Amino acid sequence: MDTSVRARRLNESSATEVAKMVAAGEARCEDVVRACLERIAEREPAVGAWQHLDPDHAIAQARALDRAGVRGPLHGVPFGIKDIIDTHDMPTGYGSPIYAGHRPVADAACVALSRKAGGILMGKTVTTEFANRYPGKTRHPRDSRRTPGGSSSGSAAAVGDHMVPLAIGTQTTASTIRPAAFCGCVGYRPTWSDLRMHGVREAAGSLDTLGLIARSVGDVALYRDVLLRNAPQPIAAPPARLRVGFCRTHLWRLVDPVYQSRLEDAAQRLARAGAAVADVDLPAEFERIEDAHRWISSFEFSRNFTHEIEHHWEKISAALRNGRLKDGLGCSIERYVEARSFAETLRLKLDAIFADYDVLMAASADGEAPLGLDSTGNAAFCAIWTTMHVPAITLPAFTGSNGLPLGLQLIARRNGDRRMFAAASEVWRVLC
Amino acid sequence: MDTSVRARRLNESSATEVAKMVAAGEARCEDVVRACLERIAEREPAVGAWQHLDPDHAIAQARALDRAGVRGPLHGVPFGIKDIIDTHDMPTGYGSPIYAGHRPVADAACVALSRKAGGILMGKTVTTEFANRYPGKTRHPRDSRRTPGGSSSGSAAAVGDHMVPLAIGTQTTASTIRPAAFCGCVGYRPTWSDLRMHGVREAAGSLDTLGLIARSVGDVALYRDVLLRNAPQPIAAPPARLRVGFCRTHLWRLVDPVYQSRLEDAAQRLARAGAAVADVDLPAEFERIEDAHRWISSFEFSRNFTHEIEHHWEKISAALRNGRLKDGLGCSIERYVEARSFAETLRLKLDAIFADYDVLMAASADGEAPLGLDSTGNAAFCAIWTTMHVPAITLPAFTGSNGLPLGLQLIARRNGDRRMFAAASEVWRVLC
Repeated sequence: MDTSVRARRLNESSATEVAKMVAAGEARCEDVVRACLERIAEREPAVGAWQHLDPDHAIAQARALDRAGVRGPLHGVPFGIKDIIDTHDMPTGYGSPIYAGHRPVADAACVALSRKAGGILMGKTVTTEFANRYPGKTRHPRDSRRTPGGSSSGSAAAVGDHMVPLAIGTQTTASTIRPAAFCGCVGYRPTWSDLRMHGVREAAGSLDTLGLIARSVGDVALYRDVLLRNAPQPIAAPPARLRVGFCRTHLWRLVDPVYQSRLEDAAQRLARAGAAVADVDLPAEFERIEDAHRWISSFEFSRNFTHEIEHHWEKISAALRNGRLKDGLGCSIERYVEARSFAETLRLKLDAIFADYDVLMAASADGEAPLGLDSTGNAAFCAIWTTMHVPAITLPAFTGSNGLPLGLQLIARRNGDRRMFAAASEVWRVLC
Repeated sequence: MDTSVRARRLNESSATEVAKMVAAGEARCEDVVRACLERIAEREPAVGAWQHLDPDHAIAQARALDRAGVRGPLHGVPFGIKDIIDTHDMPTGYGSPIYAGHRPVADAACVALSRKAGGILMGKTVTTEFANRYPGKTRHPRDSRRTPGGSSSGSAAAVGDHMVPLAIGTQTTASTIRPAAFCGCVGYRPTWSDLRMHGVREAAGSLDTLGLIARSVGDVALYRDVLLRNAPQPIAAPPARLRVGFCRTHLWRLVDPVYQSRLEDAAQRLARAGAAVADVDLPAEFERIEDAHRWISSFEFSRNFTHEIEHHWEKISAALRNGRLKDGLGCSIERYVEARSFAETLRLKLDAIFADYDVLMAASADGEAPLGLDSTGNAAFCAIWTTMHVPAITLPAFTGSNGLPLGLQLIARRNGDRRMFAAASEVWRVLC
């Protein structure tokens, strides 16, 4: 076989396919890594997905894995790690000049678990400043005038552009679902507290989760099992009649009209395919979640960053100083506790709503990735679900008027991650 | 004034008194630090509270504060930090040989907030291995054959022995309340998620909190405000008729008989002083909280420590390997989620119970600090409340048959920390 053709194929393969080929002896780990490095070499100047990339180190890891037996279910699968997450053998800068060149002494839990399963850490992907709003260098892979979304900008761009099949991001507001949707990826935000955060720079711990980015539902399900230290389990069959709640939310008027029509059409197609699709109107108080999210996240963030505020104020962007830090430093414990208690009350109400639905479907953002690199886009379409601690997944279901990806967001009840994957597979089968 | 007498007084003063004296020009920060260092020099060989102590650096901090204006409400107050918490200018070893000599690049949020308020970091206090069970070198200040309790062993011993007026610990099970009770301190575990954890080595994030150790209720209330970045507020007056629920729990049969009689007597004294004291029997399902705690904490802990498991297995104690790690690695996500959901359900039931009580009163442990240094004591008396995310405080209310301290634990509803301080002040007035 022509090795360059083979190499091109490998970087486009899913993690599941790569692991299967490597385990069967049909490809070496080194082949996979070289295919990904080739793609990166070609595309990185335009995309800027990587904060740190050391091809020799990636190849050395691959060769070591080729010499060893199969370590686990990600054996030979290259992955990227958002540069807000510690790695013992690569610098970790948290998207801030304060930490340029910083070298953690240990891997974050999610990095160690990925490696234990045989994954190959390709490098560190670009994050916004401290996973907040101030953008990094990454551009949208299909239109360099546009944002890739944030804060897991490099993770989504790298996966969407076939540089790696898997990447880890984080989500405190919209930081996984939004960039994954913009870049045409599958993005998964787990039930809060399922996946461990040791070694991830905390933004707002009561909201933070990891976020997994891939190009198939099967790959995020596989990666979740790896990060839980579970033996991988196949995705279950969907219910005989999938119950889908179409949840436009109070933000519907902000959704691009073409995107609105894509979602309406999708609801009809799902119904024609046998799903029970019904409109869901959330109680009016759910409109106040964004406000609660603002106070919870900014209160926690601003206290967590006291060292940087006290020692490195001049190296913090104006966007962060005048945004989340200003909000947070002005927020009292009383206001914080009120917002936190309100969120907890709504979580219980949302649990009750899920008695009637397997999943809710909603927009992942307000439209295609917007023009301009100063903003990473509207976060409100995810802030609701993030604050509710529920799992969510975005599927690259549609294309917008500029030919760019639009996501379909599915949301499930807390602890319903695996049932959400089953539903997502069925929705993918019908729509994608 | 004879300086040696003055010095002896200063190390025995409360944080509130020290801050007041320094602000009034009645003592210099350096005087306070020297008084504490003198006490440490005298007592440290017997107690072993400190993992890292650099007298010159402490004096240098004090002199810098003496030159500057008053920075905040802890100006001139020496404090100790459990060595599970990062400090930019002192090594942080997490109680493990794996991290001996490790130097973090930044202060944890709680350290930076303490310093911003003018506190003087005296050094790092001894922790058990990764805030788990394997003990450090610390001995009980009043009987060196006995454990000081754990995991915040050095923090409690240092405060109890008048080496510093304040120290920070953490609590995932019993790690603040238990050692504080054993060492005759006031120990405070806040409502879960009130005080920020950035820079604290995570054990089990959904249970972990900071813990504050002092020698008065006023000092922990002051320190809480500092760590919230709040302007300090006086403790409110207690309700006209304090409603106290005497909650023996299903563990009562494990409580030392003398301790039982002290608690029974205290309930009567509080009633005679005007409180409404009633017995509270928790529903039987609360007996299963310890089991839920076991699975939640060990599942989270074991995944968080993947890097250490993979790279440093031989440097992990047998106690940790065969205890929490074995439990955790054998715990499935399904069992973890079941335990987590069960705990959430009981939190709501406990909220309802608190409709009738301002505080519950309970034992802080099963008795005085036990003989022997291999174990840090029974953790069950705190595991209940830790898992419930409620605030708790232990007061040095009693003395046991060996002349050692016994704590009275008060527990309040979630977010009721300030009302708990008001109740604790009233209970202190009556009992202590």
